[in-house]
Amino acid sequence: MSTTNIPMPREQLERIVRQVIREQFAQRLAAGEMQMSAAYSSNLVVNISARHMHVTTEDLERLFGPRSELTVFRWLYQPGEFASEQQVTIVGPRQRKIEHVRILGPIRKRTQAEISFTDAIMLGIAAPVRPSGSVDGTPGCVAIGPKGSIELPCGVIRAQRHVHMNPSDAEAYGFKDGQYVKLRVDSDCAMTFERVLCRVDPKVLLEVHVDTDEGNACNLVNATNVELIGD
Amino acid sequence: MSTTNIPMPREQLERIVRQVIREQFAQRLAAGEMQMSAAYSSNLVVNISARHMHVTTEDLERLFGPRSELTVFRWLYQPGEFASEQQVTIVGPRQRKIEHVRILGPIRKRTQAEISFTDAIMLGIAAPVRPSGSVDGTPGCVAIGPKGSIELPCGVIRAQRHVHMNPSDAEAYGFKDGQYVKLRVDSDCAMTFERVLCRVDPKVLLEVHVDTDEGNACNLVNATNVELIGD
Repeated sequence: MSTTNIPMPREQLERIVRQVIREQFAQRLAAGEMQMSAAYSSNLVVNISARHMHVTTEDLERLFGPRSELTVFRWLYQPGEFASEQQVTIVGPRQRKIEHVRILGPIRKRTQAEISFTDAIMLGIAAPVRPSGSVDGTPGCVAIGPKGSIELPCGVIRAQRHVHMNPSDAEAYGFKDGQYVKLRVDSDCAMTFERVLCRVDPKVLLEVHVDTDEGNACNLVNATNVELIGD
Repeated sequence: MSTTNIPMPREQLERIVRQVIREQFAQRLAAGEMQMSAAYSSNLVVNISARHMHVTTEDLERLFGPRSELTVFRWLYQPGEFASEQQVTIVGPRQRKIEHVRILGPIRKRTQAEISFTDAIMLGIAAPVRPSGSVDGTPGCVAIGPKGSIELPCGVIRAQRHVHMNPSDAEAYGFKDGQYVKLRVDSDCAMTFERVLCRVDPKVLLEVHVDTDEGNACNLVNATNVELIGD
């Protein structure tokens, strides 16, 4: 994925600069110049992924009309990723629905809906816990856009809690791609999440994603500390 | 509280018999006749408290008319406690509402609404985390019943996760009233909850209460094991 064709606001540029500094820090750390310190782990960001969809070009055009494109509503923490202005309604088997579900960009190779268990119970869809993109054999739903609707045969999941790391982050923590680690969140509803999937990719920033149930369970917005722990 | 005036279905009677057996077990344990074993902790029950209200007689009559009484819809795990047939609508400051919120019986000395953070965000009410009954200084809401409505000046909380224990349970675990302990839930979304408040009372059965956000975050309904851990 190249980000050169994507308009990049100052906020996102700043983040990338910070990331470069962090990587240099991690390299010095790995080279034994520095000891692991609070300064490194303080860069850990934990964000709540609200319910959202990813779509293919074909499905986007069915929902929003021919030659539709995703347009940026708000840039996300990961370079090039954004919440789009495009929203759909998700409908479950009992005609229950959730409106205003944002599509996240860029376009993906498979269409999927990532919802919380609270959403899943409300919709009446037995959404399984899956890593994003792993949708074979999962339940489907109907998605309705302003210009049409699609019936997904599968793709409704609860995204498995995960941490995006670039190789420098992974090395600094001593974690490997595909490994499970723990996340401790300190708050008035403190808890330790297990089975946090490490997803190592050179193009990403260090960021944990949990869903709204998980974020609300630990009162993440009022957390006083977050910490990744090897399993 | 006496339960002699409350109709008691067979299911609840069975629970009480089990509890007596468990207490005898705990006494033998405390007397050193037995060692702490999996058999004891297997009696641990963790239940999700869905959003609900508790009401005073005065507020019940305002909502449901003079001389109204709470009638049993479903018995809960604790002796004498029940979800009533009476339901209200909770309305927040932005006119957003949640319908079909059950009142739990018996009548309480203070009216309060226990909701999840997911509910609180939806309603636009900054509900703090509080032990049930501790409502001073909390936000209020409007509650609407079939015969009238009430405006609560305070009482909207997220119930602090807690474990009900009788003194035998507490002794067997080595926990004290008011202490915080941990709860580990093993599932595909495994986690360890901290700050689980011990509430020791001779009239209760051993039971952990979490809210829907917490239950959904750890996929409690599909948990393979639950365990209380001293802090």
